[in-house]
Amino acid sequence: MNIPSKYIEQAVDQVASLPGIGRKTALRLVLELLKRKPEDIQRFATALTEMREFTRLCKICNNLSDEEECSICKSPFRDAATICVVADIRDVMAIESTSQFQGKYHVLGGIISPMDGIGPSDLFIESLISRVAQGDIKEIILALSATMEGETTCFYLFRKLSAFEVKISSIARGVAVGGELEYTDEVTLGRSIVLRTPYESSLKR
Amino acid sequence: MNIPSKYIEQAVDQVASLPGIGRKTALRLVLELLKRKPEDIQRFATALTEMREFTRLCKICNNLSDEEECSICKSPFRDAATICVVADIRDVMAIESTSQFQGKYHVLGGIISPMDGIGPSDLFIESLISRVAQGDIKEIILALSATMEGETTCFYLFRKLSAFEVKISSIARGVAVGGELEYTDEVTLGRSIVLRTPYESSLKR
Repeated sequence: MNIPSKYIEQAVDQVASLPGIGRKTALRLVLELLKRKPEDIQRFATALTEMREFTRLCKICNNLSDEEECSICKSPFRDAATICVVADIRDVMAIESTSQFQGKYHVLGGIISPMDGIGPSDLFIESLISRVAQGDIKEIILALSATMEGETTCFYLFRKLSAFEVKISSIARGVAVGGELEYTDEVTLGRSIVLRTPYESSLKR
Repeated sequence: MNIPSKYIEQAVDQVASLPGIGRKTALRLVLELLKRKPEDIQRFATALTEMREFTRLCKICNNLSDEEECSICKSPFRDAATICVVADIRDVMAIESTSQFQGKYHVLGGIISPMDGIGPSDLFIESLISRVAQGDIKEIILALSATMEGETTCFYLFRKLSAFEVKISSIARGVAVGGELEYTDEVTLGRSIVLRTPYESSLKR
């Protein structure tokens, strides 16, 4: 592509550095921005720098926050005895949007993945253990992806946490709601039979 | 979505205002930016504001430029007697990347489209006519899309420009290179027969 302006080129380079955005899309976005008023672009740019400057991780659960402690950790209405362990900030948002969980969270910041060189010490596991060690926590819910790495991380956490008197559970694996049996893979279907639940409990939703 | 930070929310709002980017994608991009160093984000933001501040339209052809005149209009190596008329800045880039055109350009800034409320006076048509009126131009190549609006604009320009002694041509319409006859629509195929070209001319490429 033959971009006739150094400044446009620069902006396209920056936008194209985002994951999943190629140079053609980047150019389209930049030319769209070019149509806006300078003060709108200023607002756009400020939103990005402020976001980087003022957002931090909650010192308790590592969730995103504007303050030292995130709104969930600070809330007196959330059950402090139950902690849901997730890999990523986006998992917190996903679970929050179900409105089915009233406890608190702990964000690991990733999962154990030897292939990517991520070991237990790269994750916020120590801080989870010291939260549990304080003794007020009754249940840990492991809400990690059902992949090899997710299962490995679950097992690692299970071993580390079994030293404490805390109930450790994992989110249910099974046939997705709306999913057809015929198209469900064997492993999931097999597990959904072994881990079957009393029919009454499905009526609660 | 339940975004736990006002600043992230703000940034997501801005990114999601771009065409074709929804809130989920915007969040993914913003969280990706959050992983970068503050100075990298500063560079990103500066590239956007500088782009808006320092880029302008070439005063001759309305192409994007960092200076009063764009690099194509300034170039002594381009044929000033041939002007290729295009709708958009991106069309200039597309034609430039073929390396088949050595003349200069005129960007209309859109096409006549009564449905979208765009009439001839909203486009840079007057400036094209005054360029032609100066008398040094020998050929105008109309390189607009082969849509209803494109054809309307071509016809309008043809009528306006036929007052001057200038050759007016249109880019060739026909079967795309690599395209199969069987799957070419009737109108295109019909036109490609009526507007057939001497075989020798296709050997020149």
